[in-house]
Amino acid sequence: MEEFKLIAKLESLIKLRSKDVLVSIGDDTAVVRPSGAPLLWTVDCLVEQVHFDLSYFTAADLGHKALAVNLSDMAAMAGKPRWALVSLGLRKGVRSDFIVDMYRGLLALAERYGVQVVGGNVSRANEFFIDVTVLGDSPSKPVLRSGAKAGDVLAVTGFLGAAAGGLHALQKWGKRCTRLFPDLAAAQTRPEPRLAESAALYGVAHACIDISDGLASELHHIAKASGVKCVVDADWVPVHPALKELAKKTDLKAMDLALYGGEDYELLLSLPPRKLREAQKRIRALGGNLVILGKVASGRGVYLRRSGRLRPLKPLGHRHQF
Amino acid sequence: MEEFKLIAKLESLIKLRSKDVLVSIGDDTAVVRPSGAPLLWTVDCLVEQVHFDLSYFTAADLGHKALAVNLSDMAAMAGKPRWALVSLGLRKGVRSDFIVDMYRGLLALAERYGVQVVGGNVSRANEFFIDVTVLGDSPSKPVLRSGAKAGDVLAVTGFLGAAAGGLHALQKWGKRCTRLFPDLAAAQTRPEPRLAESAALYGVAHACIDISDGLASELHHIAKASGVKCVVDADWVPVHPALKELAKKTDLKAMDLALYGGEDYELLLSLPPRKLREAQKRIRALGGNLVILGKVASGRGVYLRRSGRLRPLKPLGHRHQF
Repeated sequence: MEEFKLIAKLESLIKLRSKDVLVSIGDDTAVVRPSGAPLLWTVDCLVEQVHFDLSYFTAADLGHKALAVNLSDMAAMAGKPRWALVSLGLRKGVRSDFIVDMYRGLLALAERYGVQVVGGNVSRANEFFIDVTVLGDSPSKPVLRSGAKAGDVLAVTGFLGAAAGGLHALQKWGKRCTRLFPDLAAAQTRPEPRLAESAALYGVAHACIDISDGLASELHHIAKASGVKCVVDADWVPVHPALKELAKKTDLKAMDLALYGGEDYELLLSLPPRKLREAQKRIRALGGNLVILGKVASGRGVYLRRSGRLRPLKPLGHRHQF
Repeated sequence: MEEFKLIAKLESLIKLRSKDVLVSIGDDTAVVRPSGAPLLWTVDCLVEQVHFDLSYFTAADLGHKALAVNLSDMAAMAGKPRWALVSLGLRKGVRSDFIVDMYRGLLALAERYGVQVVGGNVSRANEFFIDVTVLGDSPSKPVLRSGAKAGDVLAVTGFLGAAAGGLHALQKWGKRCTRLFPDLAAAQTRPEPRLAESAALYGVAHACIDISDGLASELHHIAKASGVKCVVDADWVPVHPALKELAKKTDLKAMDLALYGGEDYELLLSLPPRKLREAQKRIRALGGNLVILGKVASGRGVYLRRSGRLRPLKPLGHRHQF
């Protein structure tokens, strides 16, 4: 397959529908028309063998997840994603069908959230990667990691540990595990960015971060950026129910997956207790659940209360080693 | 080296100086404040063994070039680059000094053009890559590939073939060739984005593209997008003078390198003849040279006039094969 033929094929997949895209794929750069609000801008890359394995990721899963991880960053700031560029590193011999299916997975998610793919790049590589960059509208006050205040409660938008459990299951049993643990496998391959939840909680949350590297790690980011202490109660951590079954069949511990597993792409929020009821009402209206798991206090560091004892919670969890 | 330590190190290199960056590296996304003009947006990736080899690229060269190829895209649209995100794929064992030197090369170029690095991503990879995305202000009418008109002249902002000649020389003789062919080696490792030239020609050029894949290939892009015929005179093609010497020492042909070599990152422009004198004056004022190499006619395709005969010029040149 030749570069320009592939680009022409991708061009045909990307239908433009709005007036905020002046130039799309096919010139030296894309040209977009911002609304006038400040812009949120992020980039996140999935690399073969590091972030995914094609023995258990379909092409469409990969496209979905590559965009989802970026939309999750937008959700963490309470932003509205608008446009995306897709930069691909393609191995020799990659089938054009595969790329088209991957794009379809990506575009299906993009469409659901009103995101337009306006261009990108294709390059040869000896290792497959998909690097997506997303631009979106910032709300008037983007919700930062640094806004947590002593007295706040800490909450998450859903169960934790599912994506890491799914990864272990997929690595151990391959695609067969999608029958045994459909929710865990889907959490790993098809994370849903919490954009609706994020918009619903705007004006309520003091601080927010998405859980990409694991709860413990994200708590440390909040604590450090906000100059506060985070205390989480182990009994309140919403461990995904299917992890109990997974733990029986493996030597994995459900609580460890929930604390350190990463890739759940739920939102971790810090919010004032007086707004908690309103926040929970708003999330329930979306069919979700806002789970309280701890509180913010003055001080430093992150602590886990377990069986009545308070111990430091280390920022273990996913991080690349070079 | 651990991911968050590396990020902290990079954070210390990136000093923010302006009010148009509300949130930089260190949160879920960057937040920038656009001027209100439409925005140009591009992404371009350099992959080890595909685009560079560390036996003849220094870390600083790599950082420079990774940004330069994106700034060149901005120049092709007559835009003003403002911000960049840097997405890295890092092999295990990469030295932190190497990354810092690469960033310094990138930041030195960024500073010269008033570009601010506001974040990015780091990932493990088994193959080194650096993917840069740049956002910039569009002029009121971005200069597209599609604006060429019959009767225009075709011109380029400098010598051609140097970067491809430099690549061959570096591959053949390694870094030693920087003594023999300093201009060629520099054209390959340190391309200069033609932002000043592009700004000077705004309002004059009907169409513009940067020469990344080779003159022949870019002429085809202009011809196709504009629905015109491009005719280039071989005697007018500004073959880099050092290529004559290189051709003596190898079996390379200087004209082939100029036509098909790619990576020169000069601008190829289509402009009305009545504005040519003014355009040349403006480029001379920058210490450069605007070289006429052909003309635009009604029709289709790209032709080369050589020894009095007109023949189709094929869009050979750099393109990835998958």
